[in-house]
Amino acid sequence: MPRYKILIEYDGTPFAGWQFQADAMTVQGEIEIAIGKLTGENASIQGAGRTDAGVHALGQVAHFDLAKPVETDTIRDGLNAHLRPHPIAILGAESVPEEFNARMSARQRHYLYRIVNRRADLALDRLRAWRVPRRLDERAMHEAAQRLVGHHDFTTFRSTECQAKSPLRTLDHFAVTRSGDDVTIEVSARSFLHNQVRSMVGSLALVGDAKWSADDLAAALAARDRTACGQVAPAEGLYLVRVDY
Amino acid sequence: MPRYKILIEYDGTPFAGWQFQADAMTVQGEIEIAIGKLTGENASIQGAGRTDAGVHALGQVAHFDLAKPVETDTIRDGLNAHLRPHPIAILGAESVPEEFNARMSARQRHYLYRIVNRRADLALDRLRAWRVPRRLDERAMHEAAQRLVGHHDFTTFRSTECQAKSPLRTLDHFAVTRSGDDVTIEVSARSFLHNQVRSMVGSLALVGDAKWSADDLAAALAARDRTACGQVAPAEGLYLVRVDY
Repeated sequence: MPRYKILIEYDGTPFAGWQFQADAMTVQGEIEIAIGKLTGENASIQGAGRTDAGVHALGQVAHFDLAKPVETDTIRDGLNAHLRPHPIAILGAESVPEEFNARMSARQRHYLYRIVNRRADLALDRLRAWRVPRRLDERAMHEAAQRLVGHHDFTTFRSTECQAKSPLRTLDHFAVTRSGDDVTIEVSARSFLHNQVRSMVGSLALVGDAKWSADDLAAALAARDRTACGQVAPAEGLYLVRVDY
Repeated sequence: MPRYKILIEYDGTPFAGWQFQADAMTVQGEIEIAIGKLTGENASIQGAGRTDAGVHALGQVAHFDLAKPVETDTIRDGLNAHLRPHPIAILGAESVPEEFNARMSARQRHYLYRIVNRRADLALDRLRAWRVPRRLDERAMHEAAQRLVGHHDFTTFRSTECQAKSPLRTLDHFAVTRSGDDVTIEVSARSFLHNQVRSMVGSLALVGDAKWSADDLAAALAARDRTACGQVAPAEGLYLVRVDY
């Protein structure tokens, strides 16, 4: 059976997350419905990252198999036509070998977290970023973030509902920068635990607000205890940016 | 009477434009209602740019007078509280001399027009940019745009409903750049005619699509005839970025 890889952008706001649910609107569910309308086939798709409700994607990747081959341009344009009016866009489609697996073959996942650090409510960026009214020290956040880079037990920063067998993960990159009111956090790893990025960002915001020191953050990591997590940053600031294979 | 200047961000999508209308929701109207709720006064505000329905602002400026002075921090935070849930944010408020007039004192207005040049529908940028599926030549657009810079009769690029006495305007800056799929158009002038930016951008897109040459654009300008305008770009790509005084 021919296998296809698709590159997907979505606004996570109206969806109950990526993963299919029988009784809720999900990104996976809507794309599977669109594949059915386009091809008449009942394909199921697998995504690289199971983003939560409200989390966005600039470059989610998924794969699926069809019984009969379809031109990749037809897949891209046809899925986009059938996905309207949902805020899901298929940016590209390509044929891949049967060994390709969007989830298992991923070498690196890149996430972005957007904070708008200002008093005024968000107008244009509503549901696109986390507004933090109190001034954050982005340099302190960046320095503290380096304490999480590397191979660690991230039990503190995983959801109690996380189904991964191991809490061990390797963070390759964690950077905090500011441009005006925009505080941008980039984080990369081969894979992440459930709620890991939002849990780390929420705790880093405590560092930025001078409520935690970098040592407090390191101690929270070392505690390997979910109750040591500072806070979980809201979903609307998180973007799955890119997946490398 | 104390006069105040406010800096405003808004998502133009739900509004029938900036300017007050008795029977429609407008940005000016909602801010005037919020001022009434905050101060009990019936102030009317004047904005620097009368943006159309669907046009956004990152830095609109307006002024208004109050009978009794109010702390500027209270104006900012109080208006934001009363403006909820409208996508209008008061970014700042300051006291200004009586001579200050948001519209008349403006020395330079800066607009941005965002095109996303790709086949796939917009997901995250829906109602925030104009999607153009066919590949645009942004260098040809930039070169042609320079033919409009300077002091000209812009009758071709003004709405037939434009109420300005003179069609003469001076364009100081007009630049087209590309970053990936994003084609960004920046344009600055002391003042603009009604629909001028959208009319110029729509015609420039014809140049980018090789339907018009730079000479065709110059000929359209020289015609001083509204029917010579190529097309009017949609409102959702336009942002009032900043006003200089």
